[in-house]
Amino acid sequence: MTTLTPEFRQSIRRSVDQALDLAAEVTLPKFRQPIVVDNKDVDGFDPVTLADREAEQVLRDALTAALPYAQFLGEENSVAALELDPTLQLPLSQSDQASLTWVVDPIDGTRAFITGLPLWGTLVALNDGTEVVFGVLDQPWLAERFIGDGEHAELVHGGKSSVLKTRAERPISECILQCTTPDMFTDAISKQAFKRVQSKVAMTRYGGDCYAYALLAMGGIDAVIESSLQPYDIQALIPIVEGAGGVITNWDGDACLSGGSVVAAANAALHAQLLAVLNDQ
Amino acid sequence: MTTLTPEFRQSIRRSVDQALDLAAEVTLPKFRQPIVVDNKDVDGFDPVTLADREAEQVLRDALTAALPYAQFLGEENSVAALELDPTLQLPLSQSDQASLTWVVDPIDGTRAFITGLPLWGTLVALNDGTEVVFGVLDQPWLAERFIGDGEHAELVHGGKSSVLKTRAERPISECILQCTTPDMFTDAISKQAFKRVQSKVAMTRYGGDCYAYALLAMGGIDAVIESSLQPYDIQALIPIVEGAGGVITNWDGDACLSGGSVVAAANAALHAQLLAVLNDQ
Repeated sequence: MTTLTPEFRQSIRRSVDQALDLAAEVTLPKFRQPIVVDNKDVDGFDPVTLADREAEQVLRDALTAALPYAQFLGEENSVAALELDPTLQLPLSQSDQASLTWVVDPIDGTRAFITGLPLWGTLVALNDGTEVVFGVLDQPWLAERFIGDGEHAELVHGGKSSVLKTRAERPISECILQCTTPDMFTDAISKQAFKRVQSKVAMTRYGGDCYAYALLAMGGIDAVIESSLQPYDIQALIPIVEGAGGVITNWDGDACLSGGSVVAAANAALHAQLLAVLNDQ
Repeated sequence: MTTLTPEFRQSIRRSVDQALDLAAEVTLPKFRQPIVVDNKDVDGFDPVTLADREAEQVLRDALTAALPYAQFLGEENSVAALELDPTLQLPLSQSDQASLTWVVDPIDGTRAFITGLPLWGTLVALNDGTEVVFGVLDQPWLAERFIGDGEHAELVHGGKSSVLKTRAERPISECILQCTTPDMFTDAISKQAFKRVQSKVAMTRYGGDCYAYALLAMGGIDAVIESSLQPYDIQALIPIVEGAGGVITNWDGDACLSGGSVVAAANAALHAQLLAVLNDQ
């Protein structure tokens, strides 16, 4: 793991804030407007909008300018290192930067975006090769920016910052579970595992995409259980959930950097219970 | 049906705007705050918040002041006619008013409200005994007010009004369907009917409560199919959907004033197709 100074963390936050402001200038004018939807996946329905591609380009340009030797992993593509001016003053050495990766989803919740629902998000994570050291979920239509570093998490809204804190422990029978759609569980085993959890909680809410994890971080719900996630769907959300006091892993209880099946809980006690129910123990 | 003059319609709109502004002063300070949730239905989970009850009281007071001889149907209770000052100047006679009913849901989507999701709505309908002549869905956190009279519909946001228009006809295989939760279909026949529609559309989105009908009216989705609705869940939405060019009925194709199972579509052609699929014809 790279040692990051407070000064470096501050400069990263400024750079990400600026990059997200630029991305919002691309996404917001296209939200709730007639848009062209390509069909990337001929078997299913995976809409990719012009806004998605343009916002990723803007984020890539801005974030690569901030850390030119860092890697970049986006939903649309990854880029090689750039040709650089050797006289450039950089906050970290080339070798230190080389262990860092920006992990970006310009519009998480493309389906929410195309239906006019303001619950999509622009996700930016900075991964140091071991863990995510900084993550942001930006929802520019709501002017909400959720920011976390694994130890703290906050919501910036209307110029004000408020601390994010997950819900306290309570019986699982009083818990609220969220999941974007039950259709994301594609095999019989995971469908059954999710249903076992549903049978134990007070209620299940659907919808939300990345915003479900924001609700978890702000203490609105107790758990999010999902499947079929990509690394760029989840990495930015990890330090927000953990910074707010929650626990987030894959269904084996390991780090969920690579996506797949994810279980996020408001506290460690609930997380342990959910893992046991998912794995039928 | 009562004949309503343009002047009367304007005064109704002003009264409803004022009532909704007052209701928002009750609901917004309680949104995303720790709240007390009663369990109204001991068998299930039907949260009723303090905000719900207080907002209904505020709406009842304001709307009853505007039309003292009209009936009032709320989620929480209904009220008898009040003792009135006989010298009061009223826009309609007592007998004309007596055929009118306010139908109000102070917080539609209580579950969205308690989880911090800004997709709940305050619903106000004015029913003339035959049909709903005016309906509003207010989402004060988003500062969005959807207003319809069956012939026109508009969205007022940030001081600007924009015309609401549903999506044009397209093949059912390209359509987007929304529904708050698949759990609202409680019997095998309606579960199967909903699944038949799902198998024909491009995608199903869950979540939304009343906001799904707003997405339909603004052209973001093609259809909403739901079940187990109450009159106050749906009446305000009817003139918004119809005013935007959509068609909304129950699953028998009749007026859905009493709630129950509802099918709302962006256009008449799709509505006819959906009715046929729901009824397996």
